[in-house]
Amino acid sequence: MALIDGKHVSAAVLEDLKAKVASLRDTHGITPGLAVVIVGDDPASQVYVRNKVKRATEIGMLSEKHELPADASQEEVLALVEKLNNDKRVHGILVQSPPPPQINERAVIETILPSKDVDCFHPVNVGKLLIGDEDGFVPCTPQGIMTLLAHYHIETAGKHAVVIGRSNIVGKPMGVLLSRKSTRANCTVTMCHSRTRDIPSLCRLADILVVAIGRAHFVTADMVKEGAVVIDVGMNRIEDSSKKSGYRLAGDVDFEHVSQKASYITPVPGGVGPMTIAMLLTNALKACCLAHNVAV
Amino acid sequence: MALIDGKHVSAAVLEDLKAKVASLRDTHGITPGLAVVIVGDDPASQVYVRNKVKRATEIGMLSEKHELPADASQEEVLALVEKLNNDKRVHGILVQSPPPPQINERAVIETILPSKDVDCFHPVNVGKLLIGDEDGFVPCTPQGIMTLLAHYHIETAGKHAVVIGRSNIVGKPMGVLLSRKSTRANCTVTMCHSRTRDIPSLCRLADILVVAIGRAHFVTADMVKEGAVVIDVGMNRIEDSSKKSGYRLAGDVDFEHVSQKASYITPVPGGVGPMTIAMLLTNALKACCLAHNVAV
Repeated sequence: MALIDGKHVSAAVLEDLKAKVASLRDTHGITPGLAVVIVGDDPASQVYVRNKVKRATEIGMLSEKHELPADASQEEVLALVEKLNNDKRVHGILVQSPPPPQINERAVIETILPSKDVDCFHPVNVGKLLIGDEDGFVPCTPQGIMTLLAHYHIETAGKHAVVIGRSNIVGKPMGVLLSRKSTRANCTVTMCHSRTRDIPSLCRLADILVVAIGRAHFVTADMVKEGAVVIDVGMNRIEDSSKKSGYRLAGDVDFEHVSQKASYITPVPGGVGPMTIAMLLTNALKACCLAHNVAV
Repeated sequence: MALIDGKHVSAAVLEDLKAKVASLRDTHGITPGLAVVIVGDDPASQVYVRNKVKRATEIGMLSEKHELPADASQEEVLALVEKLNNDKRVHGILVQSPPPPQINERAVIETILPSKDVDCFHPVNVGKLLIGDEDGFVPCTPQGIMTLLAHYHIETAGKHAVVIGRSNIVGKPMGVLLSRKSTRANCTVTMCHSRTRDIPSLCRLADILVVAIGRAHFVTADMVKEGAVVIDVGMNRIEDSSKKSGYRLAGDVDFEHVSQKASYITPVPGGVGPMTIAMLLTNALKACCLAHNVAV
C-alpha cells in the first residue's frame, strides 16, 4: 500500500504556482488577484477564508478578504459581487459557502462573472465541464483528486471508477471528470448515492473508489477490491474526549483496515483536503491568464 | 416482452401540447414561436427541419424556417441568431446540426439566448441540467427517454442503469437525468464508452440499458439480463438492395434476439426517434411560458 500524500503534492503545486506568479509579474507586470467574500461569522468559514487568503498571499497573489455582517441583505452581497466583477485587479471571486439563510446563494453565484468564477459553481462553467470545453474552470476538490491521480501516475483509462455521493461540489463533477474522453481520464464510471441498492457489491467492482458520502468509516475492507485505489473525500467529526477540541476528524473510509487492501489510499486528514486551496489558486492563475490573454 | 411505442407516446404528447397551445391562445392571447435555422442544403438536415416546422405548425405554434446558403459566413449566421434573440414572437431557436465546416457551431450555440435554447446545447442550460436547476431545458432525446419510462410506469429508483455512449447530445445528459435525485430518476448509473473494458459484463448488470453508441446490433442477447428494460437510441443505415432507398435502418441493439429477454424494449424505428420532436416542442412551450411568466 502506498499513501497518497496530499500535503506533499499540494506543496509542490503551490511552489509551481509561486514560480508562475513571479514569472507573470516579471515578464508581463501582472499580479493575479483573488477576492474572497464572507458573509457572517461562522467560525469554520472564517478559518477556511483566512487560509485561502493566506496561501494566495504566500504565492505572491493579490488577495483580498471582503467581510459582510451576518445580517447583510441580498442586495448588499450582490452589490459587492458586482463591484468585484468590475474590478480589473480581481481575476477570481469566491463567496464562502454557506451564506446566512436570508441570502439566495444560487443568485449570488449566478451574479459572479463566469470568467471570475474560480470555484466553478456558475452554470456556464458547470456546463462547460460537462460538455468538455477547456476554457472553463474545474471545481477544486475533484480537480485536486485528478491531480493526485496524475502525480502518482495512476492509470485511469479503461479502469472502473465508482463514485459514492452525487453532490454538486464533489460527486457529480468527479464522475464527469473521470469519464471524460482524455488520456488522463477515460474511466468507466458508476455513480452511487443514497438510493443505490447494494453499494458494497458495486464498490467491489472499483479499480478506483472515490467516497464522498459524509458518513464516518462508511467504506469497510470487505467493500474494497484487493489493489484498488481509494480516495476519501470525507471530513467527519467524531467525538473524542482525549482531544483538546473534543473531536477528531474521520474520513468516509475505515482507513485502518481498507489501507491493508488498497494499492493507493488517501489519509484523512492530509489526503484530498490540502489539495483544495492549491486548485483554487490554480484556477485563479488560469483566470488571470485568460483575462490578460497570456500563458505561463 | 412489451414494446415501448414511441409513435403512440409522442402522438399523446403532441395532442397534449396542442391543447395547451390552444389554451394559451384563448386565455392569454399568446402563441409560442419556434424558429429553425438551417445553413446549407444537406438532404437529411432538410428533412429534419421540415418535420420540426410541420409538427410545430400542426399543434398551433408559430413556426419559421430560416435558410442560409451553404457558403454563409459565421457573421451571417450570428446576425440571424441575434435577430431571432431579439424577436419577441420567437420563444425557441434551434440551429440544425451539423452546419457547414466554415461555421463554428459552438460559437453559434453560445450566441443563442439561454432562455430560447430549446435544444439545451448552451453551457448555461447544460450546467443547470447537471446542477439540477429546474428552470433550464432538458435535451430532447434523453428527455424523450425519461418520458417513455414514465409513460410505461417503469420504476427507476434504486435501479441500475447502464448507459453506453458519452456524447454531449445523448449519453452524458442521459446519465445525469437517470441519476438525479428525483422520484422519477434515482438510478445508480454506469457510463460506458469506447474505452470501457468488458462492456458485455457491465451490460448484464443493467436493469435499464440505454444504448447510444452508433453501431448496428452492437448489443446482443448474451449482454442483456433477463427482464431488463432496453432503450435503443441507434439509427444506423444498413445496405439493403431490397429497399427502394438501398438501405434500411437498424438500431444499436439486436432487436430480434434481445426482445426475447427484455421486459420492455424500444424498436428502431418507432421507439426513441419519434419522441425527439415532441420534446423539442415541449421545450418551446416551456420557453414561451417562462418568457411570459404564465403556466398552462
